[in-house]
Amino acid sequence: MTTSDGDAGRTTRQQGKRAPAGAAVLREDVTEAIRTAVFAELAAVGYARMSIEGIARRAGVGKTAVYRRWRSKLHLVLDLVSALAVQGLPTPDTGSLEGDLRLLYEVTSRALRHPVASQVIPDLQAEAARNPEIEAALQKALREGQHGVASGIVAQAVARGELRAGLDEEDEELALDLMSGPLYWRAVVVRGELPKGYLGALATATTAALKAL
Amino acid sequence: MTTSDGDAGRTTRQQGKRAPAGAAVLREDVTEAIRTAVFAELAAVGYARMSIEGIARRAGVGKTAVYRRWRSKLHLVLDLVSALAVQGLPTPDTGSLEGDLRLLYEVTSRALRHPVASQVIPDLQAEAARNPEIEAALQKALREGQHGVASGIVAQAVARGELRAGLDEEDEELALDLMSGPLYWRAVVVRGELPKGYLGALATATTAALKAL
Repeated sequence: MTTSDGDAGRTTRQQGKRAPAGAAVLREDVTEAIRTAVFAELAAVGYARMSIEGIARRAGVGKTAVYRRWRSKLHLVLDLVSALAVQGLPTPDTGSLEGDLRLLYEVTSRALRHPVASQVIPDLQAEAARNPEIEAALQKALREGQHGVASGIVAQAVARGELRAGLDEEDEELALDLMSGPLYWRAVVVRGELPKGYLGALATATTAALKAL
Repeated sequence: MTTSDGDAGRTTRQQGKRAPAGAAVLREDVTEAIRTAVFAELAAVGYARMSIEGIARRAGVGKTAVYRRWRSKLHLVLDLVSALAVQGLPTPDTGSLEGDLRLLYEVTSRALRHPVASQVIPDLQAEAARNPEIEAALQKALREGQHGVASGIVAQAVARGELRAGLDEEDEELALDLMSGPLYWRAVVVRGELPKGYLGALATATTAALKAL
């Protein structure tokens, strides 16, 4: 049987592609509307209070349209977190460790300033503390996203001779904490302003910390 | 009218103190049982799902006993967060910046390793992102707790001549982020192990970062 989304309240039509027999055709515009609605709902009410019904209402689709794509709220959120990780940033390459850190902080602080990020990240973290599946997905997202970029910056600095060669795995892990922790603390935990000059001073101080490893 | 807690399921009796006329006498052992139950419930189900009913059941008291003390779930949690802040640590004073940091990290990492802390803190942070009252209480707790100790360590290092005199307010704020961020990132965000030697290496690297301010 060939099925397609016939969601009330949405006017966009399928692009006329012929569906293979037996496959459910999922309209990409509906999927996108649901994804957008999930982030908005997460930011507004949090994971615990979020319902498939609320998501469907916000997306302007029926609940069936959501369940056709994801088995549960948990699977929906896990899928979105994984998708975010894949959009990993390229490693900055400015020619110096301090310059690379500065650029990393500019990109990260812009991302963290987005209200959705600053509301959704702590919420998923809170859920990770009691749900091993969410914890694993978040850790994977961290490794492939933030930590991938930070590792690249360290490797470049070692190659340039700015950091000593022969950092072991534990030094590397500590380097990632030194590079990621302070900005996260300021932007997400303390939720404070970033005064002019902050990111530059942070890059200078963190460069000194990394050189002490 | 003089009232006292007559909560079913609890056997401890009041210590025979005479209640002033017109005052509600709130048994301290019941209050303590409720506080303990709140932390356990927060850790188990999170702020959003936590109910006064669940707290009362866990504490072995009636719902009325909870409402007699706090108007709502929000007020209960705000009160507990404020109480935590007041239990601020004394500032370590080992004679060196690196030694003070090392001691700060040992105390903090022990506290963060407690499952209640690692589940409750992200949860309250998630709520802070959408509730200004919780945000204000958490920020006050941070300022009076963690940040109070960190400021003390910086002041001692300036007095000893280990850090330059004349750090302005923005330098100080950055110093607090450098001191608090990496361990928080590792213990609460990445939720990773702290290998042997980690806290010492972190203290060395952070000392270098602070000296670059």
